[in-house]
This record gives sequence, C-alpha cells and structure tokens, in this order.
Amino acid sequence: MRHALRTAGVGAVAALALTALATPSIAMAAPDETGGAIRHDDYANATQLLLDSIETGPAKNVILLIGDGMGDSEITIARNYAYGAAGELPGIDALPLTGAYTTYSLYRDGTPNAGKPDYVPDSAATGTAWATGTKTYDNAVGVDIHGTAHDNLIEIAKANGLRTGNVSTAEIQDATPAVQAAHVASRTCYGPDTDAIRAAATPPLAPVCGSDLLENGGLGSISEQLLDTRADVTLGGGSASFDQTANAGPWSGETLVDQAADRGFQYVTDAAGLNAVTAAGQDAPLLGLFTPGNFPTRYTATPATVGGADLAPVACTPNPSRLDTDLDLESLTTKAISLLDDPASPEGFFLQVEGASIDKQDHAADACGQIGETVDLDEAVQAALDFAIADGNTMVIVTADHSHSSQIVDSTPPATLSIALSTTEGSVMKVAYGTAAAGGSQQHTGSQLRIAGYGPGAANIVGLTDQTDNFFTISSALELNRDVVALSAGGSATISDAALEPGEAFTIAASGFAGDRQLTSTSTGEPVDPEKADLVYGDTELSGVAPTALGDYTVTLVGNRTGKSVTVDFSVTADGEPAAVPGGPAGNPVGGGTTGGSSMNPLASTGLAIAPYLGLGVLLLGAGAAVIIARRRRHHA
Amino acid sequence: MRHALRTAGVGAVAALALTALATPSIAMAAPDETGGAIRHDDYANATQLLLDSIETGPAKNVILLIGDGMGDSEITIARNYAYGAAGELPGIDALPLTGAYTTYSLYRDGTPNAGKPDYVPDSAATGTAWATGTKTYDNAVGVDIHGTAHDNLIEIAKANGLRTGNVSTAEIQDATPAVQAAHVASRTCYGPDTDAIRAAATPPLAPVCGSDLLENGGLGSISEQLLDTRADVTLGGGSASFDQTANAGPWSGETLVDQAADRGFQYVTDAAGLNAVTAAGQDAPLLGLFTPGNFPTRYTATPATVGGADLAPVACTPNPSRLDTDLDLESLTTKAISLLDDPASPEGFFLQVEGASIDKQDHAADACGQIGETVDLDEAVQAALDFAIADGNTMVIVTADHSHSSQIVDSTPPATLSIALSTTEGSVMKVAYGTAAAGGSQQHTGSQLRIAGYGPGAANIVGLTDQTDNFFTISSALELNRDVVALSAGGSATISDAALEPGEAFTIAASGFAGDRQLTSTSTGEPVDPEKADLVYGDTELSGVAPTALGDYTVTLVGNRTGKSVTVDFSVTADGEPAAVPGGPAGNPVGGGTTGGSSMNPLASTGLAIAPYLGLGVLLLGAGAAVIIARRRRHHA
Repeated sequence: MRHALRTAGVGAVAALALTALATPSIAMAAPDETGGAIRHDDYANATQLLLDSIETGPAKNVILLIGDGMGDSEITIARNYAYGAAGELPGIDALPLTGAYTTYSLYRDGTPNAGKPDYVPDSAATGTAWATGTKTYDNAVGVDIHGTAHDNLIEIAKANGLRTGNVSTAEIQDATPAVQAAHVASRTCYGPDTDAIRAAATPPLAPVCGSDLLENGGLGSISEQLLDTRADVTLGGGSASFDQTANAGPWSGETLVDQAADRGFQYVTDAAGLNAVTAAGQDAPLLGLFTPGNFPTRYTATPATVGGADLAPVACTPNPSRLDTDLDLESLTTKAISLLDDPASPEGFFLQVEGASIDKQDHAADACGQIGETVDLDEAVQAALDFAIADGNTMVIVTADHSHSSQIVDSTPPATLSIALSTTEGSVMKVAYGTAAAGGSQQHTGSQLRIAGYGPGAANIVGLTDQTDNFFTISSALELNRDVVALSAGGSATISDAALEPGEAFTIAASGFAGDRQLTSTSTGEPVDPEKADLVYGDTELSGVAPTALGDYTVTLVGNRTGKSVTVDFSVTADGEPAAVPGGPAGNPVGGGTTGGSSMNPLASTGLAIAPYLGLGVLLLGAGAAVIIARRRRHHA
Repeated sequence: MRHALRTAGVGAVAALALTALATPSIAMAAPDETGGAIRHDDYANATQLLLDSIETGPAKNVILLIGDGMGDSEITIARNYAYGAAGELPGIDALPLTGAYTTYSLYRDGTPNAGKPDYVPDSAATGTAWATGTKTYDNAVGVDIHGTAHDNLIEIAKANGLRTGNVSTAEIQDATPAVQAAHVASRTCYGPDTDAIRAAATPPLAPVCGSDLLENGGLGSISEQLLDTRADVTLGGGSASFDQTANAGPWSGETLVDQAADRGFQYVTDAAGLNAVTAAGQDAPLLGLFTPGNFPTRYTATPATVGGADLAPVACTPNPSRLDTDLDLESLTTKAISLLDDPASPEGFFLQVEGASIDKQDHAADACGQIGETVDLDEAVQAALDFAIADGNTMVIVTADHSHSSQIVDSTPPATLSIALSTTEGSVMKVAYGTAAAGGSQQHTGSQLRIAGYGPGAANIVGLTDQTDNFFTISSALELNRDVVALSAGGSATISDAALEPGEAFTIAASGFAGDRQLTSTSTGEPVDPEKADLVYGDTELSGVAPTALGDYTVTLVGNRTGKSVTVDFSVTADGEPAAVPGGPAGNPVGGGTTGGSSMNPLASTGLAIAPYLGLGVLLLGAGAAVIIARRRRHHA
C-alpha cells in the first residue's frame, strides 16, 4: 500500500484509514509502463491529502529520530537494497512533510577562520545545532564557538515540566546523544577518568576534558552531566564510562554506576532488566546501558575494496553478535515511548532517538553495515509513527546530522573502495566510497540533508531550513519557554522549623527551581544534605542538623543553571523556641518556615541573567556563592 | 530578505508583499548565537505560510526547470560558493514546497536484467521518465524498454491546445531537451547524417540511429523529429546537426535549416535575431540555435587534480567565451515566457528549461564550471518565479534528472580529484570527485533528488515521489487529456469541390486532428500537397489537382500519431459537375465537400488504438495505409 500515511491524513481516524485504503490500480502497472513507477495514487487529491497532513500545532509530544550520517544517498542505498528502487522504507518514506536543511559548522574562537563556516561538520557541532539552536565548532557538545554553554532540548523540555528521553545505538556519550545531556568543549570527554586514561597511554594523549572536569571547576564529563541532566529515560551503549570513578564533587570516589543508583536512577544492562522496568520518571529515571561501547550492527560487515564492485555481488547477512531483538532500536524506541507517554497528563514528552552506526559503518566503507543501521532506524521510525498516529498529538521528525561518503555508481571507480550488492529486486547495486584511502576513515560530506515530519507543527520543516531551525521547530511545537532563568524565578524554600535546639534535625523544602538541574546548598552552620540536590520538576528536599552553638544561621540555595538564589534563616536556641527579640532584624516569623532573599539572582546581579551559562562552576563562584565541594553523605548511610 | 516567497504566499499580492516584508530581528543575530543561523522568521506562523503556499490547481501554465546533474550536493556547493553556507540561492531556495524523488532507470529488453532497476540512470532515461511518465533504459529518448514510443509533455500539451517551449544550454538534441521532442532508441541519433558520419570515422563507429531513420521507416533523427513536434519556442545550442541533410521523407535533400524554413519556422542564431522576434506560435514557431554544440559555461574551467584541495584555494573567474548576456539561461527563459504567455487566451503554456552543464562540468570534475551553471539555472528560476508570482496561475517546478559525483569534503582525499575554492564568505570549500580517475568522466550517482515547486498543483511534489510522478503532476495541473488518440477522434476533412474537371485544382481542409503531429495523405489519383502536413492545433490545408482520367477518386488522410484516418472522395467529370448516377455507391452529396470513413482508425482496428505508437511508420504501413514517401513539392516552388 502506497503512502498510507499521506492518504490517511492525521488524527484519530488515521490508523483506521491505514487499513481501509483501496489498492490503486494505476500504481499496479508494470514499472516500464506509463505510470507504472509512480508513487502517488491520486493526483487530483494529492494536494488535499497534503493539506490534511498539516496541523498548526501545538504538539503534546515530539519524537526526533536522527540517522547519523544518513544523507539522501544513504537513504537511497538502504531503500534500493532492502525494499527495491520502486519500494518504500516503511517509516522514513512515509512521512508526509519533507524539506532539506543546511548543516555547516563554524570555526572556533582562536582559530584562523574563527566564526566562518566549516562546510563539512561533525556530529557534535550538528547535534548542538538542533539541540540548542546554536551553530558551533566541530567537537563542541552543547557549547558555542566561544565556549559558552547553551541549554539543550532535553534540559528545556524538563524545565517546562515535560518528560524526556534519549535513545541511541551508540555509546550514550557519543556526540549525538551527548548534545542532549552535556556541555563540554570536546566530545571525547566521556568520563571522569578520560584524561587520566589518555595521559597513561603510550604514547600519552593530550587531555580532552581539561577545565570541563569537576575537579577543575567544570560541569563534569559527559557521563556525569548525563546524570545531572537526568532525563527520565536514557537507553544506549557506553557502560564502560560509567565504570569510571568520580574524582570530585559530592560523589567523588564512587563509580558513576553507583552514583546513578545513589541519585535514584534505575540502572539496567540487559533485556531482562529493561523488560522489568514498568515506570520511569524524575523520582526514578531509567538508565539502560546494554554494551560497553557501541551496539553491534544488524548485518555483518562487508569490506569494500579497491575494484570491489567488479566482484560478484553479495547479499548482507545477519550479524550473529547483534543484541537481543528486545534491544534493537525499534524496541528501545517503543519502550521509551511507553515509559514517557502519559495520556492522563497535560504535559507531554520529548524523545530523541539516534540510529548511530549508519555514520560509523559509512566511515568504515561497510555498505551492509550502514544499510542494516538505516533499516533499524526505519523500524524505529515506524514505531514512532504508529504511536503518533494513534496519539494524534505527537510530532515526529526524521532527519540526519550530516551527509556522508557512500555513493551509488554505475561502474567501478578505479582508485577507490567499492562493493557490489545484490538487492531485493535481484539487481546489482554498486556502492563506492571515494573520500579516503583503504583503511582510512571515509569522510562526512557537506551536502544539505533531508528532514521530514509528521504531526502538529511539522510543516515548519518544509522548504529549506537550517539545522538550527529544528531546535525552534521542536521547542515551538511544544510551546516550551526557552527562558529557563524565568522558570526558576519563583524558586523558594521553606524550613520545617525556624527555631531549633542544638543538634535538632530539620528539613528544607525547595520548590520552583524548574529551570535548574541541581540545587547547591551552603550554610553558615553545618552543611545540609545533599549539598548538590537533584531537582524533580524544580522541587527537592534537603535535611540538616542544627549546630550546637546557639545563634542565627543561614542556608543559601542556588540553582546551578540559573543562579537563582534563596536563603533560609533559622535560629538555634537552648529550648528550640524563637528568641523574643523585639524589633530585631533576625526575628523569624512564627510558623513552619522561612524564605529570604528569593529575588536575589547572582546571574542577574552580574547582568548575565538571560545569557546562557558560561563555565557555570566558575561563574557561580565568581558570583559570590561559596560553593562547597565535599563528599556527599549518602542517604541512609 | 529571507523566504520572501514563503512569507508572501501566492497570488496577485505576492509581488507587493515581496518588498513589504520587515527584516526579521532574530535572523540577524551572529551565526554563532542561538538562532543566528536559522532560516525561518516566525515559527508560530510558518505552518500558515506553508498552507498559504498550497493551491490545489489547476494551473494555466507550467514552467519546469531542470538542473542536469543537480543533486543536493551540487546545490549546496553552488550556494556555499556564491551565497555562503548561511545564504540562499535566490531562485532555487525560494520555492516553498519541497520533496525528493527517485530516479532509477530499467534495463532494456534483450539484456540479462531486462526490466530490472538500473540504480544509476542517465539523462535520457530520466528525462523520458518525467516527459512521458514511463521508466525506461539508459540511452532511450521517449521510448520504453520495449522500444515503444510514449507521448511527451510538449506533444500532449500541444494536443490539448497549449503553447509549448523547450530551452536548454546544451545542444538541443541532448537528452534532456530531446525527450520533449523525439522518440529514438539511442540518444546520440542527433541528425539524419549521424550514422553516416559515424560509419566514416576512423575506426568506424556503430550506427546509433538505425531503424529510427526516415529512410529505414522510422520517425527520423532527433533534429528532424524536433521539427515534427513543432514546439512554439525552441532555444538552445546544437545548430551543427541542423546543417545535416535529410535523406528521406518530404524534405529529402534539404538541410534541416532549410526544412525548418520550409515548414514555417523562424530560425535565429544570435542575440540580435532573437531580440527581433516578437511573436512565435504554430504558424511560425521559433527555433533559436546559438552555438554549434553546447553553450560555453559561465566560469572558466577549474581542473581538479589528485591532491588538489591541498593547494591554495581559488576563486571562479568569468569565462571570456561565454555567450552574450542576452543569451544566458535567464534571458532565454524570460524570452520564452514572453513569447508563450498570452493573458488573453484561456490556454496556457508548458515550458521546459534545462541548465545542462551542471552535469557536463561535474563529469569533467570542474567545480567552477558546475557552480556557474547552477547559478545560471538559479537566475532562470528567479525569472520563472517572478513571472509566476505576477501571473498567479503558473506552477513552477525545479528539479534535476540524476545526482552526480561532486562532494564537499573536510580533508583532501588521497587518490582522487579535488580542488579548494575560496567562497564568498572568505572560507575554504574542498570539492572532491571520486568516481573516476583523472581524465575520466566522473559518474552520475543514484541518490534520490530534490524536487521543489511553487504555485497551483505544486504540492504534489512534497514527500517522496518518483521521477515519473512529475509527468502526472504537471499534466494533471494543466488538466491535460493524455489520451491523444481521443483528441484526434473527431478528425474530419472537407474538399473544396467534390466534382472536378480534369486538371482542376482543389483544396482539402482537415481539422480536429489535435492528437497528431502531422497528417499523411495518400490518393488514388495524383498526390496531394503536402504529403506530410504539419498540423496547427489539429488543422491543416492540403491542395491537389484532379487527374485527367475521368472517374472516382479517394484521398486518405492519416494522423501520424493516432492513426486516425479519414477519406475524401471526389469525382472527375468532363464538365466538372456531379455525375447523375441513380442509387450508385459512388454518389457524392451535392455541395462543397466530403468526409468519409471518419471513424475508421487503423490503430483501433488493430486493437492498438490506445497503445502508444510502436515504430509508427511500420505500424501505419501494417495497418494498411499506403504511405508514400516522396520528395515534397515545396509551396510556391
């Protein structure tokens, strides 16, 4: 059935219409007959069907599916091989709205061409483009060419109360998932020990984390920031980096796996573990890491060779080391959707799904590898569309980060890698890789890319856009307030009792810090616990013990993204009753709690309130907040 | 100004809106700032702007612009170089509706893979796809894999009473313009002497025309059929083939230039000649051929070399041998539109415009060459859009025939051709060609392609279509009756006097043969003149002289596409008065004329009435029409 989606239009009746379509007669002609190869059923009605597919939004949910390195050539190669030239990739090709976008990056500050276009981008710059709306340099994750961090879609969606998910077939620290989780200058800063491991190599390798490490006042490695960002659902590979140990911060000395558990994550590493998870959210986010590195591919690698397309054509074969089918990209996508979707909630979700190894196998001149990964992504797109059609209020966007080397050629190029494949139609397709020598890494290329969409707001992708437009298309469809500083403006805190006996336990309830990932506490008395508190939709609870010395104390709470600062005052008195101090400035109101200085915003006071955070740790220190980095005392320990 | 077209929507007010748009503030940010690189002005309104751009048709006019070999990579290369990565090609990028289409061809009958996909097509198969709606083999012009001819858009549009035009920067016999003019088995059958020239080469080359030649019972070479198809406006290169001499048919022994003049064409060869033409139509079609072969390119060739992208970047320089600016593609497009457009007529026009040498310079690994040709095409697109916006009832489609080799790369490929260009932004773009060795012809590639549209009916190109869909998108928008046999069903003929004295002159007026290119006459008496009559919207006039022998005679007129046949009877009597034969079968009605057997259709009688013509000359002979191939007696000679 052709263009079921397009024909069906959108909305609640679409799923029904998918099965009710009559098979068009003209399209059933032999391919060599006039009209035999067409993809439209009804020209008179096609425009109306397109109009029917356009909804102005807003959308409750957005699912963004990225085929890493999936240019138009890679899509065509996969379609030809798996479904035939006249066939359709059932997911990718079913999206009714289509456009193209530009993907260039910029040269970094301090380089000779600073600020000028780099016409062939990498996955870090391109991911940052759609994740933050900001052009940046190759290698940058969530920071611009000046090193300034910019909020990503998962952070912003969370700040707006949405549920969020991040799924990839790569190690989860890889650039495409990382741009929704972290802000580091170098994409290879995977874990807290990355620089140490590199320094110990023979020969030693230059550090890549540097000032991004916690011990150097940074936001931490990608893996550590992923825990800070705290998406509700994170699924992929890359468990190896989580076996590293934090070197600073509240969880110093713990592995990141332990840290995740400490911070309430559900951590699973296999299909059984994943299948046992029935709910995930800010109270108990799901982190599923199923391989130490990247996922194995669907098909066994087919090495292209110089002159290889003149050899007998080959068929792709299943890779015996592929993961359990419950862990393929379609299954992970379906699982993530099921955990994120809440029909009863007015708040929706944002989910990013990456098919990572289209790019990786294209680099390796492995045609079957890239085809299998494209087919895998297509199956994930089908799952996303199935949900979106049934839901009726979900935007699905399918695109790529950059184009790549593989080309379909007519004859075997003499000097470069190629291979001949026997396709599902019984014909022969020659695929060539001409941008690197044998054994080298085939290059990304700079062509504009396909972007396709379905659902409310998706019409914004039609025509020519830039990769950065995708950030606004998505955040606009979800009606996100991108000013996360404003989302913490109402932050406040209340103490359980403002007059305490020496040594008496107290709690502080903080709320309204939706724009922040964590709340950092300092105290003029004993430290409160945790000193770095994960916020659940802007709320958290801290606990403390009154000092033994009588007097007045202040706990200062600072949102670590927005700089929103509030203070809570309490007094320690011998009897735990408020001291009667007539007219004194330290008098606390009678009752449960105190919030003071709630309008103080260190970022605002330095004129940076609406600027994205710039070396956040440094900035907060500079703004006068006495951040105390200390070993966190575990709950219940 | 960004997306002026998209913002303006369509219709009569669009031109005004183009100048009235405020410059958007967000888009003016530096490229490295959040939102600084976006192409949309207003996300909340973008969907409505898209909706505004969608019109359900029909369209009065269609302008189809083809960039030969203009894949997404070629578009991006030209944009980067000429307008910057953040810029826009003012024509190509302004089209509001975008999609992708597949371009594969099929293997020919008699080959091992007959009927199966050939994943990398040539310009003949791809042009035939959109011109006729039929997939065919590489090398085929207007015929399918079985050799059967299929009507093209210019023929069908003409048959429906529209004006037609065909413009190219290539020799007009080249595949892309040829598919709208001719039906030959081999694209290189340019002229009547092509095979003879090939046979005389050292070493001799195999014939390419063969049975397509008039002397072999075929429809003739591409150049000869171009005169038969008789578009109102034909502009391009390729005059060399028109200096060849017909070897058979009514114009045997004449050059094609002379034949064109004989058949009423206005033939011009330079800008002055073109500028002097103020009208063109079926009575006096315009044929302008400005170069013996292809047009010179806009920019001087830049030879890519192995390792060349490591050399200093170069800028493109104007080609001193480029044609007069009055003959650039934009000017030819504007001229063609001005000659074809008739606001007072209910009938519109179909115009095909090709920028041919994007492909040719890509084959030659000439980056500046292909860039200049893309910029030239973009200027033609601007001209087409300017007209369409002002007209309000014109569909513009911009696409390509197949993708090509050129890729933007990050580093210099070691073994293949490359070059570094300094772009308008002052950055360096490396372009590589990896599908052939130095000196060889870089290959077409098989990627799906961008198709973009504007105006009534253009929404059909959104999503994924096939190249053959374009035929239906265009013919549906123009509401063309594609059943050209039906368009000649009402063909009839009337003789000036049905009873003649010996040697008396007569005329026959034929009309209603709209589905045919020419009308072939045979007579049981003296031949009538012309024996192969060009039809003007289905009408023509023939003249004859009554035989000296008394008796009854019949002139048979056959439409050479549809086989529609009518007979005209007359008697030669001594006094030129009708013989009084009571009840006799040969009795002619009193009065001016006679049409007999008008419902006789030789194609219908053989059951082939609605089948496209298959070796038309042979078929007509087989159907019993005694086609007499004879030297045509010139008018007035």
